[in-house]
Amino acid sequence: MRLSRYFLPILRETPKEAEIVSHRLMLRAGMIRQESAGIYAWLPLGLAVLNRVCAVIRAEQDRSGAVEILMPTIQSAELWRESGRYEAYGKEMLRIRDRHEREMLFGPTNEEMVTEIFRAAIRSYKDLPKNLYQIQWKFRDEVRPRFGTMRSREFLMKDAYSFDLDQAGARHAYNKMFVAYLRTFARLGLKAIPMRAETGPIGGDLSHEFIILAQTGESEVFCDRAYLDFPVPAAGTDFDDVAGLQGIVDHWTSRYAATSEMHDADAFAAVPEAERMAARGIEVGHIFYFGTKYSEPMGARVTGPDGQERPVHMGSYGIGPSRLVAAIIEASHDEAGIVWPDAVAPFDVALLNLKTGDAATDAACASIQGELEAAGLTVLYDDRDERPGAKFASADLIGLPWQVIVGPKGLADGMIELKRRATGARESVAPQALVERLRQGRAG
Amino acid sequence: MRLSRYFLPILRETPKEAEIVSHRLMLRAGMIRQESAGIYAWLPLGLAVLNRVCAVIRAEQDRSGAVEILMPTIQSAELWRESGRYEAYGKEMLRIRDRHEREMLFGPTNEEMVTEIFRAAIRSYKDLPKNLYQIQWKFRDEVRPRFGTMRSREFLMKDAYSFDLDQAGARHAYNKMFVAYLRTFARLGLKAIPMRAETGPIGGDLSHEFIILAQTGESEVFCDRAYLDFPVPAAGTDFDDVAGLQGIVDHWTSRYAATSEMHDADAFAAVPEAERMAARGIEVGHIFYFGTKYSEPMGARVTGPDGQERPVHMGSYGIGPSRLVAAIIEASHDEAGIVWPDAVAPFDVALLNLKTGDAATDAACASIQGELEAAGLTVLYDDRDERPGAKFASADLIGLPWQVIVGPKGLADGMIELKRRATGARESVAPQALVERLRQGRAG
Repeated sequence: MRLSRYFLPILRETPKEAEIVSHRLMLRAGMIRQESAGIYAWLPLGLAVLNRVCAVIRAEQDRSGAVEILMPTIQSAELWRESGRYEAYGKEMLRIRDRHEREMLFGPTNEEMVTEIFRAAIRSYKDLPKNLYQIQWKFRDEVRPRFGTMRSREFLMKDAYSFDLDQAGARHAYNKMFVAYLRTFARLGLKAIPMRAETGPIGGDLSHEFIILAQTGESEVFCDRAYLDFPVPAAGTDFDDVAGLQGIVDHWTSRYAATSEMHDADAFAAVPEAERMAARGIEVGHIFYFGTKYSEPMGARVTGPDGQERPVHMGSYGIGPSRLVAAIIEASHDEAGIVWPDAVAPFDVALLNLKTGDAATDAACASIQGELEAAGLTVLYDDRDERPGAKFASADLIGLPWQVIVGPKGLADGMIELKRRATGARESVAPQALVERLRQGRAG
Repeated sequence: MRLSRYFLPILRETPKEAEIVSHRLMLRAGMIRQESAGIYAWLPLGLAVLNRVCAVIRAEQDRSGAVEILMPTIQSAELWRESGRYEAYGKEMLRIRDRHEREMLFGPTNEEMVTEIFRAAIRSYKDLPKNLYQIQWKFRDEVRPRFGTMRSREFLMKDAYSFDLDQAGARHAYNKMFVAYLRTFARLGLKAIPMRAETGPIGGDLSHEFIILAQTGESEVFCDRAYLDFPVPAAGTDFDDVAGLQGIVDHWTSRYAATSEMHDADAFAAVPEAERMAARGIEVGHIFYFGTKYSEPMGARVTGPDGQERPVHMGSYGIGPSRLVAAIIEASHDEAGIVWPDAVAPFDVALLNLKTGDAATDAACASIQGELEAAGLTVLYDDRDERPGAKFASADLIGLPWQVIVGPKGLADGMIELKRRATGARESVAPQALVERLRQGRAG
């Protein structure tokens, strides 16, 4: 992609309204634009990251056996009256009347709707287990939205819902999502630690938050440092192996880890001092088992092997991709800008032409872009008529993993410069060796 | 994907509320479920088709040089007051008050918001042309929603918006979308004919609807039969070639074609009788050039080469993917069910196990599924404990392009059966020859 044909409205000045670094950087790098309080448009660079985050989430949901659906954003109040949550939910629910004065709402979550979909289709234990997920926009009308896409009113959520015959089945469904979440966050380049959590307005018996550590995190967290070195379950993990998954979950919940709401100072004091870690974190995922809380009042019942009908046991499992984009920046940036992990970078390579208009440099850049793209790398080619300094600053700000720097001087020596954004390391490379060098760098 | 692990709630009975065939078939095949009047959840099979339709649309938008963004669904009324459309839009606009009593709305279209995004970022002709598009859910509060996803209240729309310095530039932007649309519909397996259209509530000077012919179409259309044989622009079409694109558009608008609103009986009578075609059609795309209708009141101005500021010339370009899924079914079905074109089929192959539980048949099916998937084909494996007749009926209903039928009798002779859904043609194939046979079939 040539930058001259792209849409990347970089801001020179730091926006005053942004209180946290991810919000500042997302605005400055032209990733998002605020359209109303807590409501953002995703510009091309931001959307590219959001799509990559979603692709990783989707791949791990699919691997765990969850099946993707897509529910509408606008729901009927009737459905929420069945569970009793319509009145209970409070002002965060965006309530709407349509032209026929029917009460509707913009879904803040989808337990009721997915239970309705399930009960209309499934009547027998033979069709269980099921886990249905979606990636869809939600709305929660926060009193004071802030921190950019970290706490916005309209936000993207991956929400999965599991259905099982009994508590043991539901526990296995919970463990599948637990393992899928560990894998998802690791693939996104994040260290996520599961912490026992309160079940909150969704209710239920068992719940974990997945927290990533970041100095600018909103939550205070306390945990055993050992978690940082725990191995993440492999891609080949057998999600049908009940005991195997339980073993992974037991291991990942064997040490102390708690957010401030669940913190137990005495238990924490029992952790060896060298292992104790008090830090700040950002919640990036939340999983719940809540039994028959919705299936009972809404009549989502199945016949068991004994011929008896009973309400299904359910759980729900959320990740906020739009929040996650901000969280990744909180965890990975420096003074010059964003430092994207390879797995979510909007492009692999920033190609900088230091003398746009110079025939030899233009030709070299066009040829390099073609070769990199033919090798399967995505390239943002800065072909603007700008000073090198402006191009360096933009490239550091938007944080693509590699910068390929092409100027007349280097070309005269048959060399181009390669810079790794994360480390700042620079090296000279012959143009014909570039693709191979980047392949190694990607693997390494 | 094993059907036992999928979520495919097939209906045995024809739903009474469905007036048109696509609505009936989408409900029966478990593609969608109605959640409120004119509001649908997309179940896995439906979502798979919707995603494939969007992938083709996206590829052709990108090819034409448009850049993808994603705007929020909820918009501020203020923005619509700037263009004067807030009061004018009428009851189809879903109006909302948030918890602070601010007037908001669920976007029925995005001219205002994209103009705001543009004006905040671009000030000079040097950054033109631009075409920004999104694929996002919209809401239009129809008095009487009906026909399933063909005319729903919450619907998916690809909407693109072009920005140019002057009318000539905007004409070229219009022609790019015209050609992209011809390619998009052809790749989706549809014959689409561009017809001069009224500009309607969006306003403007130049507009075409793209209509596909279907006996069950909602519109009466009149056109020259010659269009059916017009060649579709090739993938290698140069979208920067102003004269070349104009030539294509001139050719594709050279014959008579009109919806009933724009029909001119005298002009139609001048078409040679053998060429005259009066038929029914479905609008699947709509493109507009509307000049400075929004940029003027909203102050979206750029400096030209002469240093003078002027409002940009704009166009907007819509395709409804959720409507298109239904339109494809209207154009491609038979008495037994849907007949998916290869390009949008939710899976390539239905693999039918005629004796689930028989060790040899189960093993053969598992092996065939593995080989087909390794060859890059997507497979829905009917491993349910059902009679063969039920499996045949389901497979015909959901309309995957190929059926691979595996039973103990055939296996004893070393053969499996292959059926092409569109023609009903059956042939016997040795299992080891299957992948190669399907590869040929796909190419052919």
